Amino acid sequence: MTAHEQGPSQDASSADTRFLEDFRAMSAFGATPSGGVDRQAATGPDIAQRRWLEGLLAERGLRVVYDRVGNQFGLLERVPGAPYVVVGSHMDSQPTAGRYDGAYGVLAAAHAVFRIAEQDAAAGAPAPVYNLAVVNWFNEEGSRFTPSMMGSAVYTGSLPLETALAARDADGVTVAEALAPTGFLGEGDGPEAAFCAEIHVEQGRVLEESSTTIGLVSASWAARKYAVTVHGEQAHSGATVMADRRDALVGASMLVVAARELADRFPGVLHTAVGQLDVYPNSPVVVPSRAELLLDLRSHDEEVLAEADRLLQEQVARIEAAASVTVEQTLSHSWGVNPYQPEGVALARASARSLGLSSGEVMTVAGHDSINMKERVPTVMLFVPSVGGVSHNEGEYTEDSDLVAGLAVLTDVVRRLGAGELAADGSYTPGRA
Amino acid sequence: MTAHEQGPSQDASSADTRFLEDFRAMSAFGATPSGGVDRQAATGPDIAQRRWLEGLLAERGLRVVYDRVGNQFGLLERVPGAPYVVVGSHMDSQPTAGRYDGAYGVLAAAHAVFRIAEQDAAAGAPAPVYNLAVVNWFNEEGSRFTPSMMGSAVYTGSLPLETALAARDADGVTVAEALAPTGFLGEGDGPEAAFCAEIHVEQGRVLEESSTTIGLVSASWAARKYAVTVHGEQAHSGATVMADRRDALVGASMLVVAARELADRFPGVLHTAVGQLDVYPNSPVVVPSRAELLLDLRSHDEEVLAEADRLLQEQVARIEAAASVTVEQTLSHSWGVNPYQPEGVALARASARSLGLSSGEVMTVAGHDSINMKERVPTVMLFVPSVGGVSHNEGEYTEDSDLVAGLAVLTDVVRRLGAGELAADGSYTPGRA
Repeated sequence: MTAHEQGPSQDASSADTRFLEDFRAMSAFGATPSGGVDRQAATGPDIAQRRWLEGLLAERGLRVVYDRVGNQFGLLERVPGAPYVVVGSHMDSQPTAGRYDGAYGVLAAAHAVFRIAEQDAAAGAPAPVYNLAVVNWFNEEGSRFTPSMMGSAVYTGSLPLETALAARDADGVTVAEALAPTGFLGEGDGPEAAFCAEIHVEQGRVLEESSTTIGLVSASWAARKYAVTVHGEQAHSGATVMADRRDALVGASMLVVAARELADRFPGVLHTAVGQLDVYPNSPVVVPSRAELLLDLRSHDEEVLAEADRLLQEQVARIEAAASVTVEQTLSHSWGVNPYQPEGVALARASARSLGLSSGEVMTVAGHDSINMKERVPTVMLFVPSVGGVSHNEGEYTEDSDLVAGLAVLTDVVRRLGAGELAADGSYTPGRA
Repeated sequence: MTAHEQGPSQDASSADTRFLEDFRAMSAFGATPSGGVDRQAATGPDIAQRRWLEGLLAERGLRVVYDRVGNQFGLLERVPGAPYVVVGSHMDSQPTAGRYDGAYGVLAAAHAVFRIAEQDAAAGAPAPVYNLAVVNWFNEEGSRFTPSMMGSAVYTGSLPLETALAARDADGVTVAEALAPTGFLGEGDGPEAAFCAEIHVEQGRVLEESSTTIGLVSASWAARKYAVTVHGEQAHSGATVMADRRDALVGASMLVVAARELADRFPGVLHTAVGQLDVYPNSPVVVPSRAELLLDLRSHDEEVLAEADRLLQEQVARIEAAASVTVEQTLSHSWGVNPYQPEGVALARASARSLGLSSGEVMTVAGHDSINMKERVPTVMLFVPSVGGVSHNEGEYTEDSDLVAGLAVLTDVVRRLGAGELAADGSYTPGRA
């Protein structure tokens, strides 16, 4: 929050203190010595944290239910039979991650709904139009089970339930097997959504550098993701004549370097990465016969993305010849620049303005559950600043003042959505509630 | 075996048939669908094969003993109290390996000793001078437990027993834990060696291309092996600005490529490889913070090796700057060109000549247990041809005729060593036996 902005009112301060206390309590689950967390999906700390959230939601009068892929919902039924404003994020994390990523959004959603329930109980409160549901999506990170954003993908119908439940971790354990003993595998499909809202730390530096408190997410970057297998041939890493080698790791390494050099050709416009690389047989004295890797290209400019993809394919052909390997590619994900409903952005801007908080439009490079949800229902996505843009790192940090400012805006957005300010067709009627 | 050479005599043919039958039976342990084997140290197939070998040795009257690191010996005591000619190799393999690597040398050693025992029993046989021991060294390959050549290193005193027993596999299981339930952890230090002999497939193409049946190994290549950790910083692989990234996998990949390019600068003279690479956290959406790899440089020219090492260090400095990473290196192994005792080479040449088999001096690039042994006692190392030099690959192949030719030479070499043709100081007295 920038210095000239007004903070939350004195009335709100004790509620903010409770939120920050809950945030600290929550951050103890899977806490690492370096100040981060390790809560991969359906591991011990993730399970313990979900039980803790279940207690928190139930204590404040929400009914906790689970759908068939383990998404966790806390329901506040205000209008019997009406659909829901679904608000939340995910509490699972990468193996060594920061405390804010996802978890902040779930806890802020819970406190937003608690606050709205209190407002509902006040004299003269307007009649609600929609019910409210807090959500903790299952396995957003995808580090233990692929694909990422699994729970919201099943909820929105873009991923078959059976595919999700059959996904295996590195030890061969399926999602179904991991969730079965937890009691988190429910029977239904979860509440019916009319709208969605999510708040998240930015994972970039746009807000920080522009001294903006609230990011109004207008669109997601275009992306192409490849699952690549480089095929070589096993040989003795000492004895085999160099000219005879077909080294899969040499080929894979050339591809990692080529992906990085591609990003350097389009500075600021193209992001590339290889986050995962597995080598077989990965023995000190064997030339690798196979290397498997995941390669991403992302851009906010679809033409740049297409050009980068074309250049990548040129590099693949060059590498196959230079390293005597074959490169097998599967395009696992491909999407264009994908807007959030502009009416939702306008509604969120109005919320921030009414609270005296600076806001500005930003795009998201990272995937979020709200990207799945906006394909089904009008969806509002908010960001708060990340110090230095540090993300997927134990050093991830957001100021308390920004956390509570984001909570205030999220509460106002959910209140407006729940009051019907945004029509189910996405049209926005400012100030209706 | 080349066409003009005489084959084994008619008398030997039934013994050769028995050897080849045993070789086929042995190759069933850990057999893979592609015609190779998977018998990593102290895994089920390695254990089962060792029990099979114990039966074979015991059936032919050898006393089977194990030392404290699980080396398996079959003892033929001919001269009570005298030291032993230790002859053998290793039966463990890489995860997907060929049938010949190591296993041929152990079985050939067993059959060589069986044949000498029969010769001893014949009327007019010369009095033996040394006892004979077949050996199956523990964990030569080093794919499950580091370092490689573990059993012979402990036997010769270059590796402390405690270090070997405490080595852990990827699942955290120690050598001691893996061996304890097998009964292969003995109490003593094994038989006292006076001499050593080993036969192995070449793992190169020198013999094949020169139409030579028996390789007389004169020296091992010089080598420098580095354990390298590349340190970067975790970040979001999509959202984090490229300029902020310190990607450990990009740094590691640049190093893999640099090592390969180094070999191309010294064609035929320098071999380089990275066989093992592990990435952390190895998650699809996280910029890796750490990559660990093993990098080898090998040459038969020590000056080239030193120059290559200097160039590698230049590359490391360049990569640290280019990828914003730090590279931590540990020189885990370093040795020069290391000769086998020339008197042993002369003795082996005489053996091959007496059998009418072509022979020639070769160097070994790969490590062998005999490299440890030659530091302690006069040691003879023999090669037979590998078709195409294919090694550490399920397609590894050596002709039956070369297998039995090698067995014939090994038998004659061990007979001569056991008869005292080579003095304990290494001096060679041709034809003494």
